[in-house]
Amino acid sequence: MHRQYLTVLLFVFSPLAIVVSEDPLPSWIDGPAKKSIIDFVVDVTTEGSQQYVPPEDRIAVFDNDGTLWCEYPVPNQAAFAFDEIQRLLPANPSWKNDPMVQAAISGDVGTLLKDDHKGLIRILGLTHAGMTVEEFNTRVSKWLESAKHPRFQRPYLETVYQPMLEVLSYLRANDFETWIVSGGGREFMRVFAYETYGIPPQQVIGSHGKLKYELKAGTPVLTKTLETLFVDDREGKPVGIAQSIGKRPIAAFGNSDGDQAMLEYTTIDNPHPSFGLLVHHTDEDREYKYDENPPGSGELKTALEVASLRNWVVVDMKKDWKEVFPASE
Amino acid sequence: MHRQYLTVLLFVFSPLAIVVSEDPLPSWIDGPAKKSIIDFVVDVTTEGSQQYVPPEDRIAVFDNDGTLWCEYPVPNQAAFAFDEIQRLLPANPSWKNDPMVQAAISGDVGTLLKDDHKGLIRILGLTHAGMTVEEFNTRVSKWLESAKHPRFQRPYLETVYQPMLEVLSYLRANDFETWIVSGGGREFMRVFAYETYGIPPQQVIGSHGKLKYELKAGTPVLTKTLETLFVDDREGKPVGIAQSIGKRPIAAFGNSDGDQAMLEYTTIDNPHPSFGLLVHHTDEDREYKYDENPPGSGELKTALEVASLRNWVVVDMKKDWKEVFPASE
Repeated sequence: MHRQYLTVLLFVFSPLAIVVSEDPLPSWIDGPAKKSIIDFVVDVTTEGSQQYVPPEDRIAVFDNDGTLWCEYPVPNQAAFAFDEIQRLLPANPSWKNDPMVQAAISGDVGTLLKDDHKGLIRILGLTHAGMTVEEFNTRVSKWLESAKHPRFQRPYLETVYQPMLEVLSYLRANDFETWIVSGGGREFMRVFAYETYGIPPQQVIGSHGKLKYELKAGTPVLTKTLETLFVDDREGKPVGIAQSIGKRPIAAFGNSDGDQAMLEYTTIDNPHPSFGLLVHHTDEDREYKYDENPPGSGELKTALEVASLRNWVVVDMKKDWKEVFPASE
Repeated sequence: MHRQYLTVLLFVFSPLAIVVSEDPLPSWIDGPAKKSIIDFVVDVTTEGSQQYVPPEDRIAVFDNDGTLWCEYPVPNQAAFAFDEIQRLLPANPSWKNDPMVQAAISGDVGTLLKDDHKGLIRILGLTHAGMTVEEFNTRVSKWLESAKHPRFQRPYLETVYQPMLEVLSYLRANDFETWIVSGGGREFMRVFAYETYGIPPQQVIGSHGKLKYELKAGTPVLTKTLETLFVDDREGKPVGIAQSIGKRPIAAFGNSDGDQAMLEYTTIDNPHPSFGLLVHHTDEDREYKYDENPPGSGELKTALEVASLRNWVVVDMKKDWKEVFPASE
């Protein structure tokens, strides 16, 4: 009997021992960035310390494009939209005369972004609205199964950053709630966020149009529209957070000027200890190198300028990360 | 040593024993309504059973007014708005000539609801917008501390239904995520939902205007507006759920026709087992008695008509509840 109890006890207490002894961030090179993440987590989770934050207030928010996965040569969702246009074109021959469709086919992002993203909204209207949420989800899933990143020749879901996956897991193991707060489409990200990041749909904040609900032939149907479009970028990010979460995050992770307002909202005058981090894309060999005046999205200029003033951690992808992507499956 | 281990083991396993043996719904009279709640929870949480639902899909949604707390003689939030008008009137003498302010002062809800709630929106504009979220929260907190329900002479937070508090706790003890989905104001309910119901702000869906974000003198400020007003009632409820949660609930609790779409969305063609419940106000002695053609809000007619067709449980407040309100503090 004695021996049995001992075995049970070891089983009961062993998870704790593992958490304490294992490196929670094995893909991070030992250095100030890695240390700052671990120090913050230890500080806010140590009961009795002045920095302690109760679990219900441990909210961490993550940008997606360029922070959790690659956003070059175009954001993955734009690649999806362009591929969808190509796929749907034979059934919609009139689209050929649409200059915005032409721009999408040729990958001419500049034209699509002109006049307040007029072209992009046109393309979103053709590929992201007017169908049920279910139908849209199926389209995204099929695309994710087959499409590959043009440079890395791996599925887009394998262009996620291994070191950031480890940060997500590490935070959750310490009772943080992890949220995506991205300019990307809410319904688009929800298709893969749980499987890929461990983030359930209710913790995905993104750009979106209003959904429409009706009973069709007695069955509940939700349709995607572009009505009352909410753009979850720049000042939209704190708005999205306040609307969906209703409390201030204590940690925010981004990579561009589009994330500056979110990091400011998280770290300025926060009654709790807080943490801000910017991923700086410095690695043209393993990924991409860009900040000011990038060829596409993800400009990082003003946020980088205020980073040291705000005590935000700036991750040098080349120097701080042992691996960029997960091992290919 | 042996004895020590035994003590530890008893400590480790005792919570389980308590859950199994104690009545999770002590304020419910033993009968079909109580049994149906417990049967559903046991079914979906029994691993290996055909009815099993994994924890991440155990989403339960609750209407607030008339389902979790009293909504008579006027919804509590309307009482707050009317009291606020009275409080702010001396500083805003010009309001006196506003017919909608006059209607609010005299509690004339009928006039406020005319012309698509024109008057109500006017009153909301004076009491629920144009201030920071922080300032609004302070106003609600102060009011909740001092105001009393006119009939029951107890604070409004003590007009919650004890049997429903037990359902919330019981579901959470079985790894359900519990959400409020109410026509009431999102920011209003977030002030007290965690303390009162154990529901954190990120699980409160309600009517709302867009929040505005800015850095004011270097400090993040969020301001309430009535822009792009979202009314979380009737067909708005499944929309709010799909937008904020992104998956179907498996259990829905309401009390009026305003909850019918939410219960339909939860229980029709749900790939998981599902559960719908309506609180029927049948107890004029301990609370109120109303359904069809009520003097105020909370009409229950069409939802009651389809309840048996849909296998929704109808709670007879008088016969099913031992207690209505918690013991007064």
